[in-house]
Amino acid sequence: MTSSDEFREFGKAMIDYVADYLDNIRDRPVLPDVKPGYIRDLVPSEAPEQGESWKKVMEDVEKVVMPGITHWHHPQFHAYFPTANSYPAIVADILSGAIACIGFSWIASPACTELEMVTMDWLANALNLPDQFMFSKSGHGGGVIQGTASEATLVAILSARADVTKRNPEVKLEDMVAYCSAQAHSSVERAGMLAGIKMRLLEPDQDFSLRGETLRKAIQEDREKGLVPFCVVGTLGTTNSCSFDNIQELGPICNQEGLWFHIDAAYSGSAFICPEFRPLLDGVEYADSFNFNPHKWMLVNFDCSTMWFNDSRKVVDAFNVDPLYLKHNYQGQIPDYRHWHIPLGRRFRSLKLWFVMRIYGLEGLRKHIREQVDLAKQFGEYVRKDERFELAMEPSLGLVCFRAKGSNEMNEKLNKSVNEEARIHITPAKIRESYILRFAVCSRFTVASDIDLAWKEINRNLDLISAPTE
Amino acid sequence: MTSSDEFREFGKAMIDYVADYLDNIRDRPVLPDVKPGYIRDLVPSEAPEQGESWKKVMEDVEKVVMPGITHWHHPQFHAYFPTANSYPAIVADILSGAIACIGFSWIASPACTELEMVTMDWLANALNLPDQFMFSKSGHGGGVIQGTASEATLVAILSARADVTKRNPEVKLEDMVAYCSAQAHSSVERAGMLAGIKMRLLEPDQDFSLRGETLRKAIQEDREKGLVPFCVVGTLGTTNSCSFDNIQELGPICNQEGLWFHIDAAYSGSAFICPEFRPLLDGVEYADSFNFNPHKWMLVNFDCSTMWFNDSRKVVDAFNVDPLYLKHNYQGQIPDYRHWHIPLGRRFRSLKLWFVMRIYGLEGLRKHIREQVDLAKQFGEYVRKDERFELAMEPSLGLVCFRAKGSNEMNEKLNKSVNEEARIHITPAKIRESYILRFAVCSRFTVASDIDLAWKEINRNLDLISAPTE
Repeated sequence: MTSSDEFREFGKAMIDYVADYLDNIRDRPVLPDVKPGYIRDLVPSEAPEQGESWKKVMEDVEKVVMPGITHWHHPQFHAYFPTANSYPAIVADILSGAIACIGFSWIASPACTELEMVTMDWLANALNLPDQFMFSKSGHGGGVIQGTASEATLVAILSARADVTKRNPEVKLEDMVAYCSAQAHSSVERAGMLAGIKMRLLEPDQDFSLRGETLRKAIQEDREKGLVPFCVVGTLGTTNSCSFDNIQELGPICNQEGLWFHIDAAYSGSAFICPEFRPLLDGVEYADSFNFNPHKWMLVNFDCSTMWFNDSRKVVDAFNVDPLYLKHNYQGQIPDYRHWHIPLGRRFRSLKLWFVMRIYGLEGLRKHIREQVDLAKQFGEYVRKDERFELAMEPSLGLVCFRAKGSNEMNEKLNKSVNEEARIHITPAKIRESYILRFAVCSRFTVASDIDLAWKEINRNLDLISAPTE
Repeated sequence: MTSSDEFREFGKAMIDYVADYLDNIRDRPVLPDVKPGYIRDLVPSEAPEQGESWKKVMEDVEKVVMPGITHWHHPQFHAYFPTANSYPAIVADILSGAIACIGFSWIASPACTELEMVTMDWLANALNLPDQFMFSKSGHGGGVIQGTASEATLVAILSARADVTKRNPEVKLEDMVAYCSAQAHSSVERAGMLAGIKMRLLEPDQDFSLRGETLRKAIQEDREKGLVPFCVVGTLGTTNSCSFDNIQELGPICNQEGLWFHIDAAYSGSAFICPEFRPLLDGVEYADSFNFNPHKWMLVNFDCSTMWFNDSRKVVDAFNVDPLYLKHNYQGQIPDYRHWHIPLGRRFRSLKLWFVMRIYGLEGLRKHIREQVDLAKQFGEYVRKDERFELAMEPSLGLVCFRAKGSNEMNEKLNKSVNEEARIHITPAKIRESYILRFAVCSRFTVASDIDLAWKEINRNLDLISAPTE
């Protein structure tokens, strides 16, 4: 398998396997039926000494791998949030793998840096982001592809932290405090922990939206304690319920008080390419950094988490350690992306963003978002009209949070039953002591009849757990 | 391009393009001839509204992308260190893209977690790592695939930091000090900066090896100052010169003094699958964590940075923030890898490790390492026998550090000239005020005649810069 002839055979066989897999994914169970350690009996305990034929490896994909797969692209997968999967992105990754450059500096492959700059500006345009975030406008703004939103949040906090200690080297990390909503993703709290600063979780309002007054009060309290408030992470589209912090209130406070304002729109961000959802992003003009994941909902395969800065010099200041072996002649004229994130090495990830944006076109991408929002609405209506169920809150984008009327225990049982029956897959959340079920429209193969099926399945399971036991 | 039929066509066309690209890579210039901003004139300033045909996009790969590529897999690419590229890894990534699961927990796709456990044990076996690092042995050891060595170092430092503050919450980050050699990669210093702790760079001996006595003295000094030494990063195979810290001296000191010992063998690690190079790893039994990059030298495409812990509970303690929406029934019985690194989401990266280890076999992988070491030796002999040049140090694995006899300025000129002529690509380093040239054997397509060509080219350029200017 070191010859290109064999690669042509093997690669094309894999293309067909993958096309067949996705064509027929509906026929597989969405959840695997395996116990921890299942793989041990299926593979040898040591790597082979002699090379094996690719055909033998291909056979093991079905035997060893597939029985243990949770099929995220199954039309009945409604857990977590979507993760993207599209043909143009898969093909782009083949090219990325073959070029296999490590784009840590411009000279390490100019195309890798420059196509990223172009596609990040394309996407900024598509979202109607303010000029301050774009390379092609004046100022120091620009975007970069991170691996995940977790990393983007950490990068924002570390940049904000460095910005403070640069101006005042006496500030102790232990005294620095950042804020987010108590509804923010666990990765925000974790990013604070990793950065060695306090992350204070603030209580959102009754609609699960963090408000300006709450923030203002927290800043004042902490300053009175001698702490140094320095950063706010606002969430657009929380994981629990796709709720939105009030960034039009939070933003001006951050700007007035000199706090770094990072906006995390990991899931919801893709929707902002549709004019009807774009108002949810109003207030982004106050942000120092903004992040969302095309690898969630914009058909670009993982990993592609796009992040913009209004002043990229601040991230470079936080991350720059410059040895001779990485210097080049054009330094300073164009970004060296290694200063924009935690790793030094980086794949040519903009290729998949480029392929997807071109081959779908913005219209195709908007169509995808709108179809999924409509499917969520359909599910929401089923919940609304059924007297045994209630909406935990209004459906938001592609997510419906609901529960069976009754106790948390009952809903926990319902969740367990649905997932053990395994015809559809959903995941729960807990909001203010209420155990709720999350129904996310995830797969690009999901159609209206899948929503019907899911709703029937949930009802069937409610019957099951409600039936008197013998 | 949303139909699988089109994907079959497009995907296979890309397979052929990629096979042709690598078959004929020798005919391209190794370095691009473009200036910063070259891409702007080649692409529209906004994404298209309507989708374009995949054929049009394919045409632009040659027109827009290729002119700006530094061809890392060109047989005359000798810069930095190698990055891997192999057919089995490229094909495995197609499958990974199609399954596109996000393996943050076991239940999110059991195969994604379990195949990683299996292949990490396979690799531990192939390296003859001590039992303490393996899942299949007793204890709490095990491995995980990180994105890059930079992340692995940061994860090690953060785990060590958490281990200290867990035992003694009074310790201030500002007082915590970690150590590495002044020859360690810039990412080690950077990891210290990001973790908010002091990273003290210690002077290695005349062979660029960090020694035990130096470490012992530093620990004592810092303790006397009231600081809290807590972590040591030892390097096996530095970026500057592929030198090796003396881990058999450093390890016991770390163990005695209660410091976390992390070993970074990013480049050299792949060589340890060959028994003749394995002695370089002696002392790994003292390590708390060990990392190397199969994506550098073991034919597994980026990103695949393998890291082992002797007690994985410590990394989990440092990274665990557990919300309900990520819980599952089997928690605690099997790793949830999201607690083992900075991101939460993760691709199915073990597929490429599995494909490569099986299709090359350990013998095939050893053959690759040995051939590249032999090519470096060949180059080293040319240097040794030429009176105009000198070895900066003995060739080490696939790297030869050399210089023209004479001033730093002259060598800087030589480096510039070679890269501007662009028939081969090399990068420099500075060691103890001496400017040296690094010649790394990188591409799997490099053969003996390429070494001859490179040597002639370097001589020709020395003639060029030595010639009296008119």
